[in-house]
Amino acid sequence: MELAVIQDRTVPLSELDSSFLDRGLFFGDGVYEVMRTYGGRLFALDEHLERLDRSLRAVWIKGVDIPALRAQIIDAYKETGIDNCCIYLHITRGSAPRSHAWPEGIKPNIFMMFSHIEGYEKLHRDGVKVCIAEDLRWKRCDIKSLNLLPNAMAKKFARDKDCFEAILKDRRGDITEGASSAFFAVFNRMVVTRPLSNKILPSISRMFVRRAVENCGIEFAEKTLNPLQAAKADELFLAVTTKDIVGITDFDGRPVSGGKVGRITKSLQESFAEIVKKNALKPC
Amino acid sequence: MELAVIQDRTVPLSELDSSFLDRGLFFGDGVYEVMRTYGGRLFALDEHLERLDRSLRAVWIKGVDIPALRAQIIDAYKETGIDNCCIYLHITRGSAPRSHAWPEGIKPNIFMMFSHIEGYEKLHRDGVKVCIAEDLRWKRCDIKSLNLLPNAMAKKFARDKDCFEAILKDRRGDITEGASSAFFAVFNRMVVTRPLSNKILPSISRMFVRRAVENCGIEFAEKTLNPLQAAKADELFLAVTTKDIVGITDFDGRPVSGGKVGRITKSLQESFAEIVKKNALKPC
Repeated sequence: MELAVIQDRTVPLSELDSSFLDRGLFFGDGVYEVMRTYGGRLFALDEHLERLDRSLRAVWIKGVDIPALRAQIIDAYKETGIDNCCIYLHITRGSAPRSHAWPEGIKPNIFMMFSHIEGYEKLHRDGVKVCIAEDLRWKRCDIKSLNLLPNAMAKKFARDKDCFEAILKDRRGDITEGASSAFFAVFNRMVVTRPLSNKILPSISRMFVRRAVENCGIEFAEKTLNPLQAAKADELFLAVTTKDIVGITDFDGRPVSGGKVGRITKSLQESFAEIVKKNALKPC
Repeated sequence: MELAVIQDRTVPLSELDSSFLDRGLFFGDGVYEVMRTYGGRLFALDEHLERLDRSLRAVWIKGVDIPALRAQIIDAYKETGIDNCCIYLHITRGSAPRSHAWPEGIKPNIFMMFSHIEGYEKLHRDGVKVCIAEDLRWKRCDIKSLNLLPNAMAKKFARDKDCFEAILKDRRGDITEGASSAFFAVFNRMVVTRPLSNKILPSISRMFVRRAVENCGIEFAEKTLNPLQAAKADELFLAVTTKDIVGITDFDGRPVSGGKVGRITKSLQESFAEIVKKNALKPC
């Protein structure tokens, strides 16, 4: 008889719950988004759903009804009553007997989590330390897929060095992005970040950072930097959905902007908060 | 209240089954093996467990007792009563609230499936068609991890072209390996395959192919080939745990060895079967 073993428990394969046959588990065969609310209002929902749709197409996952998903997210969010809510969503290709090539007509599996976002005022005030780690990821980092083992390992590597984030460096020695954040440098009132390509995620936070930069009357430039160049920046910062803009005070062991969150970074945090308040909040 | 949504079903996050918090699902954070039996006897079990141990160490998954796992595999296999059994095993880092960096002391999740291997006599006799696909994988393909989205997509690409396998080509234009198989070429009674590195999996089948090659009195050489070079080979073949040695009769649209399984490939299939029978079978 065909069998499955889950930890110490043996079950006939035919009786195995389909969640154990999720291709997300066998192959990381799925895509995801991390969205959020501020004070009970969804932020950048449509931007995230547009990227999700792009990721789904890029990995040939069919059969996801984005407008229906949008309504489902809003309905479920309302049930939570959480003001500052992290909305994690992944869609896998579906469940099927394990085989690299998937069967025609397979139905995607949808999973979401709605949880509290912890306060990050201290992080904004004090900034964070980051370190450099090798970028070992695949060649389609523009797809927000569940193949995140190298990201997780880089993050763990950073945490073990008492750093908040790992800044990834590709084989050419250039910085790509953070393990789970976008990376920015400030030189002489110009904010610099890597141009979009298959080597980095088209970050939603980056879109709003760019708007904040423009609102502050500062220049925004797309340029690839290596760690030596980045270390010479006036200021460095990260952007991530659940924490907005986070200043870097220590870059791979060297203090940045005197070991404090930089002045421009602070202005951008304020400008970002204004964008959230005035422009991008949507009532449910 | 913090919530999870599974398809259409809403559950309090605190009541969510821990299998939905498996890091294997969130990050592909795990490693795997595919083993097998021939006629009721386990083949190359220790070679597979040795590689599993190596993969676990490479991704810093701790707390797996390999001898206990070995005993568990044998015990569960005995329960199945399946002669030619595919044994799929994955170990993920464990279940925890989603965060790239994992908590200290997290306990690995073990999952196995024991299923029938379908006959592949026809495949051995007739050979298979293969096509070329871009190798989009990460930079540690020597680790047998669950980050398999690029492999799955390459395989689907191949199947849609009516091919059995996708032969992956790296950015330099060189062949690495099959999406889920090792790749070999025969030139003038010499079997050639790519040297082991971080770009390919240290295939267990390859070890036994090498032994078969030596038993046939043929030369074995490690050399990197591009598709143009491979297309000029006398014979081409794949090796994969669940199907042994499979001849290639069509390589990206060009017939190989006259569109038939080559003579040396056939000898190696026989020699491989002898190795299985005489040397490597182990009674449970």
